[in-house]
Amino acid sequence: MENISFKKNNNIKINDILNILNLKNQKKNIKINDIKELNVANNNDISFFHSKKYFPSLKKTKSKIILTNPKLKSIIPKKFQIIEVQNVLLSVGLISSLFYPSALNDHCDLDVQPINKNNFKNLIVGQNSLIGKNVKLGKNCSIGHNSIIEKNVKIGNFCNIGSNVIIKNSIIGNYTHILDGAIIGKKGFGFFPGKKHNIRYPHIGSVIIGNYVEIGCNNTIDRGSLSNTIIGDGTFIDNQVHIAHNVKIGKNCIITGQVGFAGSTTIGNRVMIGGQAGISGHLKIGDNVQIGGGSGVIKNIPSNTKVMGYPAKNIRNFLKENK
Amino acid sequence: MENISFKKNNNIKINDILNILNLKNQKKNIKINDIKELNVANNNDISFFHSKKYFPSLKKTKSKIILTNPKLKSIIPKKFQIIEVQNVLLSVGLISSLFYPSALNDHCDLDVQPINKNNFKNLIVGQNSLIGKNVKLGKNCSIGHNSIIEKNVKIGNFCNIGSNVIIKNSIIGNYTHILDGAIIGKKGFGFFPGKKHNIRYPHIGSVIIGNYVEIGCNNTIDRGSLSNTIIGDGTFIDNQVHIAHNVKIGKNCIITGQVGFAGSTTIGNRVMIGGQAGISGHLKIGDNVQIGGGSGVIKNIPSNTKVMGYPAKNIRNFLKENK
Amino acid sequence: MENISFKKNNNIKINDILNILNLKNQKKNIKINDIKELNVANNNDISFFHSKKYFPSLKKTKSKIILTNPKLKSIIPKKFQIIEVQNVLLSVGLISSLFYPSALNDHCDLDVQPINKNNFKNLIVGQNSLIGKNVKLGKNCSIGHNSIIEKNVKIGNFCNIGSNVIIKNSIIGNYTHILDGAIIGKKGFGFFPGKKHNIRYPHIGSVIIGNYVEIGCNNTIDRGSLSNTIIGDGTFIDNQVHIAHNVKIGKNCIITGQVGFAGSTTIGNRVMIGGQAGISGHLKIGDNVQIGGGSGVIKNIPSNTKVMGYPAKNIRNFLKENK
Repeated sequence: MENISFKKNNNIKINDILNILNLKNQKKNIKINDIKELNVANNNDISFFHSKKYFPSLKKTKSKIILTNPKLKSIIPKKFQIIEVQNVLLSVGLISSLFYPSALNDHCDLDVQPINKNNFKNLIVGQNSLIGKNVKLGKNCSIGHNSIIEKNVKIGNFCNIGSNVIIKNSIIGNYTHILDGAIIGKKGFGFFPGKKHNIRYPHIGSVIIGNYVEIGCNNTIDRGSLSNTIIGDGTFIDNQVHIAHNVKIGKNCIITGQVGFAGSTTIGNRVMIGGQAGISGHLKIGDNVQIGGGSGVIKNIPSNTKVMGYPAKNIRNFLKENK
Repeated sequence: MENISFKKNNNIKINDILNILNLKNQKKNIKINDIKELNVANNNDISFFHSKKYFPSLKKTKSKIILTNPKLKSIIPKKFQIIEVQNVLLSVGLISSLFYPSALNDHCDLDVQPINKNNFKNLIVGQNSLIGKNVKLGKNCSIGHNSIIEKNVKIGNFCNIGSNVIIKNSIIGNYTHILDGAIIGKKGFGFFPGKKHNIRYPHIGSVIIGNYVEIGCNNTIDRGSLSNTIIGDGTFIDNQVHIAHNVKIGKNCIITGQVGFAGSTTIGNRVMIGGQAGISGHLKIGDNVQIGGGSGVIKNIPSNTKVMGYPAKNIRNFLKENK
Repeated sequence: MENISFKKNNNIKINDILNILNLKNQKKNIKINDIKELNVANNNDISFFHSKKYFPSLKKTKSKIILTNPKLKSIIPKKFQIIEVQNVLLSVGLISSLFYPSALNDHCDLDVQPINKNNFKNLIVGQNSLIGKNVKLGKNCSIGHNSIIEKNVKIGNFCNIGSNVIIKNSIIGNYTHILDGAIIGKKGFGFFPGKKHNIRYPHIGSVIIGNYVEIGCNNTIDRGSLSNTIIGDGTFIDNQVHIAHNVKIGKNCIITGQVGFAGSTTIGNRVMIGGQAGISGHLKIGDNVQIGGGSGVIKNIPSNTKVMGYPAKNIRNFLKENK
């Protein structure tokens, strides 16, 4: 899916990339389309391999140019052209900012205007709410007071957006409710620790929210760095939940108050998570998993499992040990 | 206490209720006043019995018509008229929406207007704040900027309402402070999981906040489903606390940052709760209970007890085990 | 550092202080400059000694007049003039309100006005944002929509302030980002439990935020009571973090989502804290400490230590015990 918010520089060539990495130019200065993760990269995209975990994706990727480090270099099949760097993710950040120079800052959209309800079909709208250019808003929606919907956001039909809501870089389905005070689509908490100060990198992903979803009050859902943050159809989320960049939540999940998800974790379908549970980053939680309130999940969880505890374990064991 | 916000349909008859439940009509089509919980229902209200836990209330209820399921039917005294359904709470939701058709959506109040301070006695008010019709606001109150007080809300004397606050469906006493960013009175996180998508049910309760209370920044306090969410006199609540529907908190409690309460739990008087503790739903916490920071409370706690841990246990045992 | 927000009454004499404490007047009615903590008090400030923990500070203090209780009185060196009270902190609160009568309420700043961008150098600013009198705002800053920057706040150069942000009683360095919905500088959760209701005391401290800092969405950072709340240079803080009054966080720390800090805790430099961890009050966490997600820290932690667990222990032990 194309990014909806950040203008891509379509004139990046391989030597621009090598320049920004302080590497030697190539003789054949071919054009590069974009930087993408292995599993979604196309022929003319550059991609990157920074952990053995992604070897299955490497084998299947359509990308031909792979950024990697000296340690991983040896296991990359010979058909790929390799660009060797010390810090793969830092280099990805630099290249991303080359393609998407405007994605680094997170300024508010300055072109928002008061909403003219006559531009939309059966729109109910409160006071002081603002809307950016090129926003798509389906029929029979409602928007509260003081809410801000920034440029290019797409919202389906029969959606309720509350008051004091901020939505940017997001695509939202039909029949979805976004409750008061939710902040959807700001850049994720991603950066490279520097000696003097941290270096922010661009977040060019979006937030994709399905149909029949409920996003609770004061939720914060960050947009993805390279891929998207996704909330599947029918998933209901209570108040004060934090969802970090690149998290993917399946369909018909029920997530209660104050739960937190660290970055890049994937949650299956019909998962139920009790209040204040925390899910670490880069995990895979299967389908039909039930996670008890207050749990701290630090490992993958297979489908059809009930867990509880800190760290989370099989719920029967947790309850037995805590009689 | 009558609901302050949602117009009740006063023309509901028993056959309207049976119709919406797909049950056969009765010959005698009597008028029903309301749907209420057993302990507050009156003669001409319908009520419901969905768990043995509520048997003591059943014995004392004034209601004569009880919704129940096939399993519980046999233990209901013969004096009651029984309506038998497969899913009691789903049926309660359907009947509630019959009585309160407007309580299902949670649109913002579209009739709010900028506050005219001359309509109130010694009111201090910031910019861009909005107030609904029929709001009662006592003397010597202050309201910050960008705050929204929706229709029918009642606020006593000497109250401070911060900036970016949203208050709806609520009654607030005297000398109470509601700090910046708090969201009071939106519908609770209650719904019936459906096969395709969840079915929301109406929340017709209110939030009742006493005198001398402090509600911290970015708190979310949901209104009750059938009964009210209550915060007693003198209770102080720190920032980022989440209080779910139907929770009842007693007097002079001290609740520190990021604590969460699941639905329908009752907290006694003078209870102290440390930061980030979580209290499960449908529990009873006695008077003078102290709950250590980070605790996960999953059982009732008798009065005058100190607990800590996950799950919470006697604090002496917790500290001994964790020396 | 002088407080930036609250006008001090410069005409307080020792007998005013004794009066408010219901104590006998002194013959020599000398002028008192201020009330300060032992380590920052000057010659003509009054200070207080309420715990043996502060004995080293007592020995070094420049203050000559010390508030204390009957129990601690005997260990105070004879060179000090002692004012004996039953409840030291309650008395401190009373005296603070004598010096800073306006610091008790937390009304919004009523003199804010829409921001005139021509008053600042290269300012980018959204709609409906408000700014108080005497605010300093450096060059090349941006401010989102609906944000409120109250009187006397100082913000350096190249800062990004998001939308729906509230900043008061704060000093912010250069290159710092404050993301959407953050609330910086409101009074801390400090009060004295009274028999009928709690008694609030004035918070006369500020929030001091350094250079290259990031403050996440919906953070709440309370100002100090007598001293300041401090966030050091280069520290990055994720969404939904709560930082209580008087907390001091060092440089280049990384604090992830939903972490909570209770009051008066000091965090060293380069400390990393995982999501949802909680740090109790009045602790000292050293430099380079790593605290795992979900941990509950209830003891001081020496520098260069990795901890995890509830309560937090050495991470190796935690992982061994939880294999």
